[in-house]
Amino acid sequence: MLTREENEFLTQVSRGTPGGELLRRYWHPVAAAAEFTEEKPIKAVKILGEELVVYRDRNGRYGLVGEHCPHRSASLAYGRVDEEGIRCPYHGWKFDCTGRCLEQPAEPAESTFKDRIKHVAYPVEYLGGLIYGYLGPAPAPLLPRWDVLVWEHGKRWIVKESIIDCNWLQPMENSVDPSHLYWLHGDTERLAPQMKTYAEKHDFIRFEYGIKKRRTTLPLATGGESAVDEHPLLFPTVLRHVAPYNEGSGHRHNLQIRVPVDDFHTQVFRVNFLPMESERSPADAPVPVRFVQLKTGPREYKMNMIPAQDSMAWETQGRVTNRAQEHLGIGDEGVIALRKLLREQIERVQQGLEPLGIIRDPEKNQLIDLGVINERIGLFSTAPSGENPNRIAS
Amino acid sequence: MLTREENEFLTQVSRGTPGGELLRRYWHPVAAAAEFTEEKPIKAVKILGEELVVYRDRNGRYGLVGEHCPHRSASLAYGRVDEEGIRCPYHGWKFDCTGRCLEQPAEPAESTFKDRIKHVAYPVEYLGGLIYGYLGPAPAPLLPRWDVLVWEHGKRWIVKESIIDCNWLQPMENSVDPSHLYWLHGDTERLAPQMKTYAEKHDFIRFEYGIKKRRTTLPLATGGESAVDEHPLLFPTVLRHVAPYNEGSGHRHNLQIRVPVDDFHTQVFRVNFLPMESERSPADAPVPVRFVQLKTGPREYKMNMIPAQDSMAWETQGRVTNRAQEHLGIGDEGVIALRKLLREQIERVQQGLEPLGIIRDPEKNQLIDLGVINERIGLFSTAPSGENPNRIAS
Amino acid sequence: MLTREENEFLTQVSRGTPGGELLRRYWHPVAAAAEFTEEKPIKAVKILGEELVVYRDRNGRYGLVGEHCPHRSASLAYGRVDEEGIRCPYHGWKFDCTGRCLEQPAEPAESTFKDRIKHVAYPVEYLGGLIYGYLGPAPAPLLPRWDVLVWEHGKRWIVKESIIDCNWLQPMENSVDPSHLYWLHGDTERLAPQMKTYAEKHDFIRFEYGIKKRRTTLPLATGGESAVDEHPLLFPTVLRHVAPYNEGSGHRHNLQIRVPVDDFHTQVFRVNFLPMESERSPADAPVPVRFVQLKTGPREYKMNMIPAQDSMAWETQGRVTNRAQEHLGIGDEGVIALRKLLREQIERVQQGLEPLGIIRDPEKNQLIDLGVINERIGLFSTAPSGENPNRIAS
Repeated sequence: MLTREENEFLTQVSRGTPGGELLRRYWHPVAAAAEFTEEKPIKAVKILGEELVVYRDRNGRYGLVGEHCPHRSASLAYGRVDEEGIRCPYHGWKFDCTGRCLEQPAEPAESTFKDRIKHVAYPVEYLGGLIYGYLGPAPAPLLPRWDVLVWEHGKRWIVKESIIDCNWLQPMENSVDPSHLYWLHGDTERLAPQMKTYAEKHDFIRFEYGIKKRRTTLPLATGGESAVDEHPLLFPTVLRHVAPYNEGSGHRHNLQIRVPVDDFHTQVFRVNFLPMESERSPADAPVPVRFVQLKTGPREYKMNMIPAQDSMAWETQGRVTNRAQEHLGIGDEGVIALRKLLREQIERVQQGLEPLGIIRDPEKNQLIDLGVINERIGLFSTAPSGENPNRIAS
Repeated sequence: MLTREENEFLTQVSRGTPGGELLRRYWHPVAAAAEFTEEKPIKAVKILGEELVVYRDRNGRYGLVGEHCPHRSASLAYGRVDEEGIRCPYHGWKFDCTGRCLEQPAEPAESTFKDRIKHVAYPVEYLGGLIYGYLGPAPAPLLPRWDVLVWEHGKRWIVKESIIDCNWLQPMENSVDPSHLYWLHGDTERLAPQMKTYAEKHDFIRFEYGIKKRRTTLPLATGGESAVDEHPLLFPTVLRHVAPYNEGSGHRHNLQIRVPVDDFHTQVFRVNFLPMESERSPADAPVPVRFVQLKTGPREYKMNMIPAQDSMAWETQGRVTNRAQEHLGIGDEGVIALRKLLREQIERVQQGLEPLGIIRDPEKNQLIDLGVINERIGLFSTAPSGENPNRIAS
Repeated sequence: MLTREENEFLTQVSRGTPGGELLRRYWHPVAAAAEFTEEKPIKAVKILGEELVVYRDRNGRYGLVGEHCPHRSASLAYGRVDEEGIRCPYHGWKFDCTGRCLEQPAEPAESTFKDRIKHVAYPVEYLGGLIYGYLGPAPAPLLPRWDVLVWEHGKRWIVKESIIDCNWLQPMENSVDPSHLYWLHGDTERLAPQMKTYAEKHDFIRFEYGIKKRRTTLPLATGGESAVDEHPLLFPTVLRHVAPYNEGSGHRHNLQIRVPVDDFHTQVFRVNFLPMESERSPADAPVPVRFVQLKTGPREYKMNMIPAQDSMAWETQGRVTNRAQEHLGIGDEGVIALRKLLREQIERVQQGLEPLGIIRDPEKNQLIDLGVINERIGLFSTAPSGENPNRIAS
């Protein structure tokens, strides 16, 4: 149970708020590369409460700049790109991806006005089909090369969900909340009731990138041996997960990245990777993206889809759930651990320290194998042969 | 003309407001029984500003409990019912219809945590096809057995309207506002102009359940004899009315029950009863329900329907009509009488007294015949032969 | 760059605000006459923050009165008209176009109550197909007889746009912002790139009705002679413009009238006039109206239409653009001049003086020829032969 002030401390995302300053120490995806075409090279995005545009210029470089032109606030989302940058649709001011103003057509040729304009602009990087942006103070840390983004021995694709109408922390609490698997996805929607009953044991292990969640399904439930399902929450906004694929014939590894849009909305990107003999996905291969609508109306969820079941739970908790009226028990140990971790890391940033999981050593960042296992679906070890995993001790 | 404060005093519905405390002394319908099926045994409802769910468990019992689970606020509207109660979709907490927490699957077997959880739960009763709830202090009064809900000598059906976007008092003022019949329903929409001109006399008689409204249409209008139309407002939220049926061959008796959803929305249920030789409706017979949409767009009313004409008038008065800018005349005598009654009854509750129309004597509550007459449509007496009416002296 | 207070001073439109009081010194169109039919003789309109209805009575006279009945606030928009005026749908109160209450059917015959009711009512006038209203203090000035509204030597038609979701000053700033023509309409949407490059010179000349904007396209751009395009902003809410018609075979003269709905919405009426040998449009001829939807969704503009390009720019500046974060240059000279003019005129009204452009001399108001020229499209002089223009010196 949190007071209103404690709740705001953990959940707010805008610049200048304690939580917003922490979130600005990490890279966040702002779009999938496959969303851009020659006809549609610009997308308006909102992230951490900031209205921005992502664009790909005629040289193929990406930029992430403020949506509203510093001249008179018209939207660059309706502008044009060329080889150098993006041009405002209203009066033709042009900017490069560092925020420099390159042209102001209606000003005299000798004017130095444009040199005094500095537009909002953030660094961007491409990885695994996603365009990431960094909205924090320089120098930016390395963009983490999680296994799912980097692996080459199979097939990769991205799913972009319809925006979820609640604060980002609700999905993240869900990622250290193992009992909801049985109930929300198993019992409520009668999906795959392979278990006889609910009998589980949970561990939450803090590690250098977040919290490892270990669910041990007990013999009472499996009717046989205990089975371990272990995968991490990558602090602060990512779940690394694995699921059966094609009726259990494969394993769909995935990242579920919950990007805070503003205090009340969250954009989820899912990156999937299916290890396969027959296919390879080199770093520069295009990654397809698919859009998924989770709802058919204001309170109507597509409850036969697992992500829609989750979003129902998160949204109905409230836009920012009122944590003063909750009742946590032993089964909420992971949630409590996450809030404790989050509070500590916000305070570290307030003290001028680097928070958890910031990577600055390229050696450590070649491929971060997260060692996910899920014995129930036959996954006892992740590391594929032929890769050079930088395996984390667990 | 009321000040802003006086207006709020009469119109607010939430717990703790003067008006909300009065309204909590009465039973209000929360759903029609026919809205529940085996596949859809749970409905989210909002009443008196409270977010609740009504459900029917596998034993056929109804429950009315808080929508948001006390655990972590997910919506029980997407949960499951069994023989004992309702289970939260997120982590499986289970509640019975008294708000007791029966199960918390993720807590240790020996935990007493669940015994310390008391969920919001209200008594419910079934009558005449409706599920009623009582949100006030114990002991709950008797659920009034109005004639239309109890009669057996004919056919009963329910109409549930689309929610009206205004405060509940606007429809109720309409129920003691006899001149609007001629103008709103007669003149404006050119419906059945059986009258030559507008010539009426009105009386408003306070009685033990509210206010009887007597409209006497004068010879100047009828072209013949005076004709009396007398029917009551059942305090605080019900109109008892009668209308011609099938071009005058029958009389459609009805209750129009205006349930305050919150300060700005009202849910109307209409219960109809058509006396017939050929049909009987025993207390346990199912009562069909029909949904009616009053609008086709934000300001587009289906003006050929009488309830849509009414809702146009009520909604365009404003969400809570500004009673500081009105100009009341002699013709608003009934409206003034209702406000006076409402103010007095709110003050009685503030003084710890019982308000008007509370029934606690089962003898008086077998069948409350409201003695509705409407001479213009040939209804000179209500009491059907073969019933045992507890007729009110008027 | 303006402070928040300065911005509100210039942009607010409600009664009692400095800007709202200035705007109330001018006539504004409230509807096109062709919007009224025998079946639909009443339209709800919002103007300068006031909720009103315009109606045409059975004698063909127009009225402009408060939407909400002074009795109990129901909407007159659903009422009826007769030969004398408009009747409230709820209880039949009847009003004439001066706001006098003619009938209160539910009051006693001898009552003088109706004589004490004065409903909101404003003068209306018809000109050029439009119904104009005047919401300011008496005596109302003359309704300006701009050339486009009065000319007879051709064809006239009205376009009514979907409502624009921003303050009225953003469109008006656009009218003294000549460089956006090349960029927003030329470059951004690749429309008619007849120019080789952007090379222009601008003048802004204050005159008795507002500001004349003179754009001189230079030889560098035309590849030949300099070309002048000169047309005025008619203070405070109108642009007088000319455009090529039918691939340059004619000239479509037009008024673009931006009516402030409230602080955050603007209704644009465009009146077009095409000089033709073959057609005449006498003052009493009906003028057709066409509705145009500028958007297909919340952020989806029909960008192949010039008015939609404009509305994109205006709306994306913000509901009331934040003028504290803009960066104005030499190219914004006209915008700066308009703000200065607007501030001065608001202050004149505050001092009890008459603002710019108020016409009270009928001699000056027979036909106000605005002397629009546009050399690039072959228009060197406006005054058609056979008219008697009251030409303004420029």
